Parts: sequence; structure tokens; C-alpha cells
Amino acid sequence: MMKKVAVIMGSDSDWPVVKGACEQLQSFGIPFEAHILSAHRTPAAAADFAKSARENGFGVLICAAGMAAHLAGAFAGNSTLPVIGIPMKGGAMDGLDALLATVQMPSGIPVATVAINGAKNAAVLAAQILSVSDDELAARLDQARESMAAQIAEKEKKLQAELG
Amino acid sequence: MMKKVAVIMGSDSDWPVVKGACEQLQSFGIPFEAHILSAHRTPAAAADFAKSARENGFGVLICAAGMAAHLAGAFAGNSTLPVIGIPMKGGAMDGLDALLATVQMPSGIPVATVAINGAKNAAVLAAQILSVSDDELAARLDQARESMAAQIAEKEKKLQAELG
Amino acid sequence: MMKKVAVIMGSDSDWPVVKGACEQLQSFGIPFEAHILSAHRTPAAAADFAKSARENGFGVLICAAGMAAHLAGAFAGNSTLPVIGIPMKGGAMDGLDALLATVQMPSGIPVATVAINGAKNAAVLAAQILSVSDDELAARLDQARESMAAQIAEKEKKLQAELG
Amino acid sequence: MMKKVAVIMGSDSDWPVVKGACEQLQSFGIPFEAHILSAHRTPAAAADFAKSARENGFGVLICAAGMAAHLAGAFAGNSTLPVIGIPMKGGAMDGLDALLATVQMPSGIPVATVAINGAKNAAVLAAQILSVSDDELAARLDQARESMAAQIAEKEKKLQAELG
Amino acid sequence: MMKKVAVIMGSDSDWPVVKGACEQLQSFGIPFEAHILSAHRTPAAAADFAKSARENGFGVLICAAGMAAHLAGAFAGNSTLPVIGIPMKGGAMDGLDALLATVQMPSGIPVATVAINGAKNAAVLAAQILSVSDDELAARLDQARESMAAQIAEKEKKLQAELG
Amino acid sequence: MMKKVAVIMGSDSDWPVVKGACEQLQSFGIPFEAHILSAHRTPAAAADFAKSARENGFGVLICAAGMAAHLAGAFAGNSTLPVIGIPMKGGAMDGLDALLATVQMPSGIPVATVAINGAKNAAVLAAQILSVSDDELAARLDQARESMAAQIAEKEKKLQAELG
Amino acid sequence: MMKKVAVIMGSDSDWPVVKGACEQLQSFGIPFEAHILSAHRTPAAAADFAKSARENGFGVLICAAGMAAHLAGAFAGNSTLPVIGIPMKGGAMDGLDALLATVQMPSGIPVATVAINGAKNAAVLAAQILSVSDDELAARLDQARESMAAQIAEKEKKLQAELG
Amino acid sequence: MMKKVAVIMGSDSDWPVVKGACEQLQSFGIPFEAHILSAHRTPAAAADFAKSARENGFGVLICAAGMAAHLAGAFAGNSTLPVIGIPMKGGAMDGLDALLATVQMPSGIPVATVAINGAKNAAVLAAQILSVSDDELAARLDQARESMAAQIAEKEKKLQAELG
Repeated sequence: MMKKVAVIMGSDSDWPVVKGACEQLQSFGIPFEAHILSAHRTPAAAADFAKSARENGFGVLICAAGMAAHLAGAFAGNSTLPVIGIPMKGGAMDGLDALLATVQMPSGIPVATVAINGAKNAAVLAAQILSVSDDELAARLDQARESMAAQIAEKEKKLQAELG
Repeated sequence: MMKKVAVIMGSDSDWPVVKGACEQLQSFGIPFEAHILSAHRTPAAAADFAKSARENGFGVLICAAGMAAHLAGAFAGNSTLPVIGIPMKGGAMDGLDALLATVQMPSGIPVATVAINGAKNAAVLAAQILSVSDDELAARLDQARESMAAQIAEKEKKLQAELG
Repeated sequence: MMKKVAVIMGSDSDWPVVKGACEQLQSFGIPFEAHILSAHRTPAAAADFAKSARENGFGVLICAAGMAAHLAGAFAGNSTLPVIGIPMKGGAMDGLDALLATVQMPSGIPVATVAINGAKNAAVLAAQILSVSDDELAARLDQARESMAAQIAEKEKKLQAELG
Repeated sequence: MMKKVAVIMGSDSDWPVVKGACEQLQSFGIPFEAHILSAHRTPAAAADFAKSARENGFGVLICAAGMAAHLAGAFAGNSTLPVIGIPMKGGAMDGLDALLATVQMPSGIPVATVAINGAKNAAVLAAQILSVSDDELAARLDQARESMAAQIAEKEKKLQAELG
Repeated sequence: MMKKVAVIMGSDSDWPVVKGACEQLQSFGIPFEAHILSAHRTPAAAADFAKSARENGFGVLICAAGMAAHLAGAFAGNSTLPVIGIPMKGGAMDGLDALLATVQMPSGIPVATVAINGAKNAAVLAAQILSVSDDELAARLDQARESMAAQIAEKEKKLQAELG
Repeated sequence: MMKKVAVIMGSDSDWPVVKGACEQLQSFGIPFEAHILSAHRTPAAAADFAKSARENGFGVLICAAGMAAHLAGAFAGNSTLPVIGIPMKGGAMDGLDALLATVQMPSGIPVATVAINGAKNAAVLAAQILSVSDDELAARLDQARESMAAQIAEKEKKLQAELG
Repeated sequence: MMKKVAVIMGSDSDWPVVKGACEQLQSFGIPFEAHILSAHRTPAAAADFAKSARENGFGVLICAAGMAAHLAGAFAGNSTLPVIGIPMKGGAMDGLDALLATVQMPSGIPVATVAINGAKNAAVLAAQILSVSDDELAARLDQARESMAAQIAEKEKKLQAELG
Repeated sequence: MMKKVAVIMGSDSDWPVVKGACEQLQSFGIPFEAHILSAHRTPAAAADFAKSARENGFGVLICAAGMAAHLAGAFAGNSTLPVIGIPMKGGAMDGLDALLATVQMPSGIPVATVAINGAKNAAVLAAQILSVSDDELAARLDQARESMAAQIAEKEKKLQAELG
């Protein structure tokens, strides 16, 4: 049975962006749970979730947080599962603070960081991770790539028509 | 009896800078403990220390960490004591990452951030915090200020002598 | 009797953000005064306020300013009370200038800096500082934390309902 | 049989840092290959390696490059395996250019970015990815965590002895 | 016969800016083609276009891309024609990521980078490049300069009238 | 009689750079005084100096400070003489903090900011300011320009000789 | 007779901000001229204006430009009058590019740089420069300061009434 | 006959980096001249050189300058030949100021910007520009690419030997 992906956000205000990750996981047929857990406001609950994630059937943990974005790091410190961090845009620094707080992790505790607000890519990365031991999922990823290429070919055709 | 100050660092490599805070506390006669605790490598021990700090007689928590500096934030999420964060210079970003990861805390969980590598100032701030209810310490702080001004006057005298 | 908190802003245009600090102090039952004083336009009045703040019953000074934000530093140079600096977003640099001008203080004169526009957190930090010698206030801070955690639990419940 | 990890660098000058990744993989008993391939100087060879990586028995691709660091992105565009990017410090921007060029990938083509010069963490992340379907490797990762915690406890003991 | 200019964009969302380059080329009477090709989503097609560009009659390649902007670099790695890179504004970093990812190319593979969103200037630069061996085009460039100066003189006249 | 220039530095550690300003003033025959005065450690002395500077025969005030560089701003708030600010390199931010803290002054209180560590240029600017009403000094400035041009011509000659 | 101030802008699109400088000069009774001259589009006209500015009765040159803001530098290279640079906000970098391009001048050729979009402060600085040899203007500057202080006192009164 | 390339530097201190461009041009057999000309210290000479460059047989102008790097922009404003800008590392900002001052040119006056200190790449780009109408030079560029690829293959072989 496929491992689940956990999609964790530090605040419900992150949901409009983060649900893009859930939709992407759904499109790949990957089971997931989404939760609101805060590294600062509910630190014990966050640590508990991370510590028991592997035995609870999770394979990848996606964490989205903004500003001094500690959520992914807190999960990474409490689990040896791969943790994907989504730095959220917002606050005065437009996400640069969240990017650095997510990616610049100390030796031994990595966070797999994607682009600022890159929720969809976090899901694609989770799928790629699960595909390492799942040939069917790998095939679905290949199809998604082909479909992206086809979309670009379509747009190129439109552009040529427009340029006449 | 005066409350103690805890001086926490994420790694023993921070000690050459962090001991400046301890020396400053000592010069004010403020009791302190220094410890190595990591938000990522020993998260449970760090959380436990923070959670019981107030009942263990601490009044201020100073946390020094570099890069994706989560230590002060992790302490702030587990205690309602004032937490002072020292962003450590180091890594490729020269401390800008640590500054943003320390200061840009979410609403409700502040970290009192000082300058990059500002260990001495963290100790002065801790002394100022304790001085709110300690007139003798307040007097010592005033004396320290006068001594700083006197040092500048001394240097000004030297400069005028040099300029002749 | 509890020490008062001074909330100083450099310009009345800062008030919409800064009043968040006042409301937060009020919710903790902490006495405060709010004033408009400029480090550059009324430097003598600002220095006088800072110099006599401790004897006038203040325990913490909160200073909000933008751009080349000197207000907190000017207060810190004229008082040994803890000074909390709020870097205000605004101008072309979106508050990065104010953050650096507030936090990068020279040795001996710290400013306890919070996030850009972090007015509410400045008030929470002031409450934490006063709670060092005030157990009742410490209890109120603990309750506020629990209420934050409860809000997140509530939102988590809603999210699960939405996800079905 | 365990999937292999490919460790690719854009230039042999990256080797002193990148070999840290190889040593880490070795310590986990993970089979790997290291290669020099350039996104700009040998683009066809790089694309060919990436395209056939999955069928050649690789499970994770680690790519290290500096400045306008395109190597990880080029691999990610030619494979649906998880690609880990190491932004290399170097050049006038000290690695900020490489960080942004590695992490800010467009929708659909993620790169799992680690800290600037974070070669060791790239290997740990690769191990975590392979551990999703490998319980023995998961156990080794847990042991490594415990050993890190033990090292910190050892250093804490030394510090307390020093502080006496 | 004049060499053609290729105007390549990574996504059709770049067209509103990129068409400024096409209009400018048209105004100089320079033949061009515009295409949508992605370094990450259609890497083989992009490499093929670049590799055969010179023999297909192109003299200059203009590439526009945002975020981790690899398009110009990918073209430069597959052709020895001059490649002009337009870093596109967009995403959370407002184009600074694209600027660095475009300009900080490794030794041997330059990209002639223009300002963020500088589509019109990319076309002017392409015209200047073609003018090196085309005196008539050089004359048209001189006329365009004179017309710019005349426009400024016109605006100066209006300003003086307004200030009157 | 020519107005004097005051050269103020926040710390004697700035002197190796700041004396470049004094030497330049001397070479123009402009009377000056150099002093150590700190916006934070001796705020009253700094304010007093600034307030009485015009009546004490000063025409221009040059202030050099690093990090959260408030010195020039504090002088500008206490005098209507032109204040020139030299942002000093130093600390973790390499002078960017000092530059922003010096230049981003609020409306009504300008600081004439020169380059980071630009002590010599601060003196040249002071000379230019005094030259507005001093034709002899203006002539000396013109000569200095010619001498700079002559030096470049000399170096150009050497380069041509070297290139043969 | 008072020297004139020249207010130069690189483009008529700068006028909405730059006219703030003109209004401020007018309020001080300082004669001025405003012109549109471009360092890049009308370089000869710009150089000619600068070269003859002193003999044409100008005492201060104010130059406003955005992006790679060369206008102030071009004027400074062609005149020994004090040149004030206003870095204009605009383009993708929000004025940071213009700030650095204006302030980081090489040794010997200073530009007196004010805040991004600081047109009003450029005019105040010009007035301060002219006041060095003009006691009446100095008095007007003192009055303007007092009026600023009075405005703040007024706003403080309103705030106290509101807090009541 | 092949057009010449002009290699202009703002200061002789740039020569150790800039001569890399000359050596590269030499290796391609491209005629060049190197000169020291300053946008600020010898503005008239710089403008004159640029204005007559095309009629004097130049095809490409390479300009290297640091800090507020105006040299390339000044040349671009006085010639319609392609101007390549090399932002020089140096000063407190490590070349970011020079990069922005070089690349962020206004509409109509492009500068083809290469990486910070990218002197060799400026020469390669100049060769690519001249190759548009010179098939022999195009062939030499192709050979240089093949030789770069061969060098990488050589290093890859060494690495495999080392890894055994």
C-alpha cells in the first residue's frame, strides 16, 4: 500500500496556496492528510505528529510556513522521513525570510526546499520521492511531463497563428 | 533573590562569541547558566528546558544560533519568559539568514532580537530586563553607561593630542 | 503597582499599526501611555522622555519607526530600561532599512527588535518582561498561549470538516 | 537491491565540498556514483545521463553547481526522479545566486534544494528518500540522529566542566 | 540577406512583455521568429532549436524567462551565437532571482543580460549586434537615437511651458 | 574667513578610514576639527555639539558611523547645517546596514550620504559645498579634477607601453 | 544675489515626485530651474549643462534618476558644484538599484545622496548648502524646523485627546 | 577585415581582471585595443572615444567598472555599437552595486551585461557577436566549445580513477 503524504501548514491563512499541493497529490492518486499545526503555538502537537509519522504510515512530510518559517525544521528535527518545506510569501520580506529560514538548515537535518509559494511543486516532489519504489507512480509522472510538453506545443501553435 | 539568566547555544562552535554574553552577565553580578541545546538535534531536551525555565528560577532566556536559526523561536514557543535571540554570523549568508529567522516571528510569540553576533548586547538587554524590578541592578547599568561615556572622552582626549 | 509601558511612535502615520500594541497591552491589563515623538524632528523632547522614563514609573519603552529608524536607538541611548524596537514597513525598502537601523545597535546599547510591523509582538514582549517579577501577569500570558492553541485546534477541526 | 544515488557536479572545483556528500552516503552504506557533467559545457551528456538515470538503477540525483546554477534544473527537466540541488558558494555573490537559481523552479519541475554548500545534508536527504521503502536504512538514520544527540550531550558535559 | 533574430520565451505568460521585443525588431525592419520553448518542460526541443539556429539563418537569440531563469543559459550552452537574456519580473523575488540566474554564467558560456523585463532593450541590443556588419541598420539605429533625443527636447519644452 | 568642517566619528576604530577625510580637507586648505562623539554613548554631548555648530563657525558637519548608523541623523536633527554621512563598512552586513540607516532619512531632515567608507569623498563634497561662495576654493577643486585626469592619462600611457 | 538650484530629471515620468523638490525650494524663496536631461539619451546636453552650471549662476545641482541611475554621477563628473542625487523608485528593484548607482561613487567624484524618492529632502539639503553663506536662509531653515516640531506637538495633542 | 574590439577600464586597478578579456580575444585572433578611460574623471575623453568608435573600426565595446559603474552606460549613450559591461567586484558591496548599475539600463540604451568580474566571458561574447558575420570565427568558437567539453571529460576520467 502506498505511503501517505502529510501536508502541514502553520496557519489556516496558508490554505489558499497549500491546497494546490493537495489537489496535485489527488491528481496523482496519492493518499494524503492535511493539518494545521504550528511550530510556535502548538509545538508539542507538532513534535508528536512528526515523531510518529513514519509508524503512522506517512512517507513524506510537506510543511508550509512563512516569515521565520520554523515548521519544516521542527518536523525535520523530529523525524527521519524526507521533509519538504514550502516557504510562504507574506509579511514585509515577501518570502525571502521564509526561504532562508527553511533552506539554511544545519548539518544532519535537511529540509528539501521548493520555491516560495511552490505548493504544487512540493506535491510533485513528494510524488517523485514515492515513485522511487513505485513504478506505476513513475509512469504517471512521465505522463504528466508529456502532458506539460503538449500544453506548451499547443500554446506555441496559438502563438504562431497569432503571429500569422 | 535575583532570577537567573539561561544562555543557550545551538552548537559549541558558537561559544567563542557566546561567552561574551556570560562575561557581561558576570560583570553585572547576574547569576546564569550556559548550555548547549539544539532545536534540531535535541528538540525534546530544548523544549523541556524552556517549558520548566520559569519554575527553575530563570528570568530571561538568551538563545544563540546561526543559519536557519530556530533555537530562540523554539524556546519562545515553549515559555512565556522573555527570550533574547542572538543571530550568529556564519555560513554563506554571513548571518542575514539567522537574523531573519530569529526576528521575523509570528504574532503572539516574540523573540527580542539583537544585532548579528551581538552576544554582549544580549547580556546587557537581559540585565535591563531584570533591572525593571531591581533598583540596584539599574544603578549598576547607569554606572556602566557612565563608564562607556568616560572611555569615549578618554579616546577623544587622545585624538586631540594626536591632532595636536 | 505595575510599571507602565510607553508606546512611542515617530509619526502619527504609524498609529494604525502601533495601536495594535496598545490594544494588546490593554488586553493584559498593563498600564501604558502612547506618544508621538521624533528622533529627528523633536530630538530634545525624545531624549527628555527617555531620560526620565524610569523615575516616571515606566518599566518598558516600545519605539516604532520606519526607514532610517533611529527612534528606538535614541531612546536606548538615553535610558537603561529595556527598549523594544518595531521596524515599520514603508518607504521604498519595505522595512528592511528600518529593521537593520533598529537591530544592528553598537555594543553596550541594545534594542530588543521584533518583526517588521510587529506591534502586537512588541506588546507581548513587554508583558513577558514585566512578568519576570509578576506571577499574575505570567499566568495571564500562559492563558493567552492556551487560547492561541485552542484557536488553532478549532481551525484544524474546520479544515478536517472541509476535507471531509 | 538498493537504488543508487548519482552525485553530479558542474566542475571539478566543486569536489572538495561535494565529496562530503559521497562520504555521508558511504557511511549509510548507500551505493553511489560521482560524475562531472556541466549543464552548459556538456549539455547533451548531462541530459542523456538524466534521461536514463531511472532505468540505470538510480533512485536519487544530487546536483551541485554555483553561480547561475542550472545543473539541478537541467536534470530535473530530463528525469522524474527526485533531484536534490546543492547551491555552491563561490563567485561574487557568495552563493545567493546559486540558491535562487536552484530553488526558484517553475511549476511542475521541482528541485529539492538544501543549504548553500550543504553537501552532507544532500546525502542525508537522499538517504531519507530511500528510507521511505527501506526499513533498515530508516533504522540507520535513527541511529545517526541518536549519535548526533549524544555528541551534543558530550559537548554540553565539557562546557559544564569548563564553567565549573 | 539579414540574419534573423529568434525571440524565445519560456511561457506564454511572458508574451505581454516579450512582444515589446518583437515590435522593436519590426520597427527596425529586422526579420524575426517568436517561439515558446521551455528549458525544463521541453528541454530537447529547446536544445535542438539552439543547436541548429546558426545554420537556420539566425544571428541572435533572445531568451526571456523568470524565477530560476535557465532558458538563456540552456540556449547559450547549445549555440555559439550571441544569446541575449531577459530576466522576467514575477514570482516572489520580483525578478532578482531571474537576473542572477541569467547573468551569473560560468566561464566560457556568456549570456548578454539586459534589465529585468527589458524586452525592448533586448531587441535594440540585437539590432546593434547585427549593425556591426550592416551599415544601413547602423544608420537606422542612429536615427532612433536622434528621435529619442528629440522626444526629450519636446518634453523639456512642455515642462518649461508648464513652469512658465 | 572660511567656515570650518567638523569631522565626527562614533568610535575611534573608525579613525583609520576617517582620517582620509581630514587629509583631503587639509590638502584643500580647509580648516577642520575631528572629534569622537557617539549618538548612543554620549547622546547629550553629540546633540550639544550639533546645536551650537553653526554659531561656532562650522559650515559643514561630516559624520561617520557603522551598523545602525545614527550619528549623522542625530546631528541632522540638531542642526540645519548640511550634514554629510559616511556609512562605515564593518559588522556582519559589510556596511549595507550603515548605508540604509544613513541615507533613508525622513522628510525634512536630509543627510548627504556618500559611498560606504567614502571618507575622502565626504571631504571633497564638503569642499564643494564651501566652494559655492568661495571662488578660490572652486578653483582648487577644478585643479584637483585636472590632476585626477592627468593621473589617468599617465596610467593610460603606461598601459599602452605595457601592451606595446 | 542667491545662487540658483538646478533640478534635473532623467525623464518626465519623474516629475510627479521631483516637483516636490521645486515646491520646497519655492517655499524657501530659492531661485531654481527644472530641466529634463538624460545621461544616456542626451549625454552631450547633460554634460554641457553641468560644465557651465557654475558660471551660469547655479550653486547646487539636484539630479533625479531611476534604475541604473547615472544622471547625478554624470553631472558630478562635469562640475565641481555639489551634486545631490535622488534615487527614483521604479522598475523591478524598487529603487535599490538607483540608490546604489547614485551613492557608490568612486573616489574624487562624490554625489550627495538622499533617500529613495527623497525629492523634498534634496531641496532641504540644497537650502542647507546655500545657508552656509546666507544667514537669512539659515533663519528660514530654523523656522521650518520649529514648524515641524509644532506639527508633531499638534498631532501628539490629538492622539492624547483620542486616547483620552 | 575584422572589426576591432575596444576593452575599456575605469581604473588601472581593474587590469588584473580585465586582462583576462584581452588574453581571450588574442586566443581567438581578434584585434583589440585596451584603454583606461573614466566616466567620471575623464568624461569628455570617454564620450569622444565612444562617439567615434564605429568609424574608427571598432565592432564591439567592452567596458569594465565597479561600484556605481557608469562606464558601460556612458559608452552606450554615445555609440550604437553593442556595448558589453563587466561589473567589477570590489568596494563594500562585492559587485552587486556594479551589477545593478550596469544592467538596469533605461529603455533604448542597452548594455549587454556579463557576470561580476566576467572578463573572459565578455571577450567570448564579443567573439560571438563578431561571428554573426564571420564563419571562420564561428568555427573557432565551436572548437573552443569542443575543447571545453574535452577538458571536462578529462576531469571526469581523473575523478573516476580517484574513486576507483
